[in-house]
Amino acid sequence: MTSNYRLTIEYDGSDFHGWQKQKKDRTVQDEIEKALSVMTGEKIVINGSGRTDAGVHAHGQVANFKSDSGLSPETFQKGLNSLLPDDVVILDCRQVDAQFHARYDVKRKIYQYNILNRIIPSAIMRHYVWFIRRKLDVEAMKEAAGHLVGSHDFKSFEGTGSPRSSTVRQVFRAEVRQTDTANVVFEIEADGFLKFMVRNIVGTLVDVGHGKLTPDDFNNIFHSRNRNLAGATAPPQGLFLVKVVY
Amino acid sequence: MTSNYRLTIEYDGSDFHGWQKQKKDRTVQDEIEKALSVMTGEKIVINGSGRTDAGVHAHGQVANFKSDSGLSPETFQKGLNSLLPDDVVILDCRQVDAQFHARYDVKRKIYQYNILNRIIPSAIMRHYVWFIRRKLDVEAMKEAAGHLVGSHDFKSFEGTGSPRSSTVRQVFRAEVRQTDTANVVFEIEADGFLKFMVRNIVGTLVDVGHGKLTPDDFNNIFHSRNRNLAGATAPPQGLFLVKVVY
Repeated sequence: MTSNYRLTIEYDGSDFHGWQKQKKDRTVQDEIEKALSVMTGEKIVINGSGRTDAGVHAHGQVANFKSDSGLSPETFQKGLNSLLPDDVVILDCRQVDAQFHARYDVKRKIYQYNILNRIIPSAIMRHYVWFIRRKLDVEAMKEAAGHLVGSHDFKSFEGTGSPRSSTVRQVFRAEVRQTDTANVVFEIEADGFLKFMVRNIVGTLVDVGHGKLTPDDFNNIFHSRNRNLAGATAPPQGLFLVKVVY
Repeated sequence: MTSNYRLTIEYDGSDFHGWQKQKKDRTVQDEIEKALSVMTGEKIVINGSGRTDAGVHAHGQVANFKSDSGLSPETFQKGLNSLLPDDVVILDCRQVDAQFHARYDVKRKIYQYNILNRIIPSAIMRHYVWFIRRKLDVEAMKEAAGHLVGSHDFKSFEGTGSPRSSTVRQVFRAEVRQTDTANVVFEIEADGFLKFMVRNIVGTLVDVGHGKLTPDDFNNIFHSRNRNLAGATAPPQGLFLVKVVY
């Protein structure tokens, strides 16, 4: 009998070319599928909640897969954690309804972006933050981020290359916080995200933090539906997929 | 004219065979000395505040060196940070009195040791914590750690191989804290540390946390001056040299 399993996955994206399977490069999906194939002898394809780019991390990526092996979720979790390289960890595995699909059933996702804002870079945090030397005006960034909340067309913040039929997304929360003297965190919760959307928003928020744009400019760019007006794409290593809600 | 410079250094110890220069392996001291030699054309030897083991990290290692180059501290800091690999960062460089010596003049050092105490390991934190699956009794560990404060003979916690003439050290502070559900931190401040001292203390504190030893047993072992009674040496990657005070 075929069972459907749901995985919650933490990974350090530093040495991965992202989530999604590729011909040659090392990806998280591929590592998990290889381990599942070793465990079951089956050819298993897993459905992730969505892609993450090369260098992006996850505290709680979600994926599902089907197997005829009859193995328990506990056996899958233990087996995967012993087979997987130590930059991928299965935090949870449970059996779910046959209809559950990790991509189609997403209700909300939470992403976090970490900025290190001090004069000197960090050796220890280098793979987990965007290092920005010039002082950021966090209050202005907070004001700009406030404009994101609600149901809006995010075309200005969509990366080129994979246009979606609809670029409207609903943002439930978008917060900039100064967590200590040198650390600024952006957190956003929405019903879905376009390609590079968080990184493009962060790049543009940093332009606000540096006074190149006012919070009103940010809002105008946002509503212009023109990617060319928005800021540069922030680098991947500051970005974490925190949680997927179903 | 010869000037004396003091460096404050952050490093990620993951890919280093420790601080101290070795014939073949990659070390922090060696990377900094190579960069200084590129900058000045001089053969410069730097004095660290003390060694750190392979895999141990530093938020604030201190070292000094002498140079006839006449370069400003700002020039040294910028030049080093552009020449050094990104797992070593010079946080501060200043000119100091000719007599200052980073090892001989140490007054106090602060070390921190991070434990991840949950059922599943962490992909993202794997190089920065000791992963311990079995639940720790943090209250018992706190009580045991309290015995360390004061002037004591730390022979029970000294690693073999480099016996010191005196094994008495003064501990100003030794605290175990549960920082959140899964994280336990040990912090210790003393006038000096023996080889593997922090890691041997942590290994023995974990035996207390697992009920193999009571806090009183810990105290008895501590005062036995017998390394064979103490626990195993905790792994290096949870350890950070936080600060050196002069």
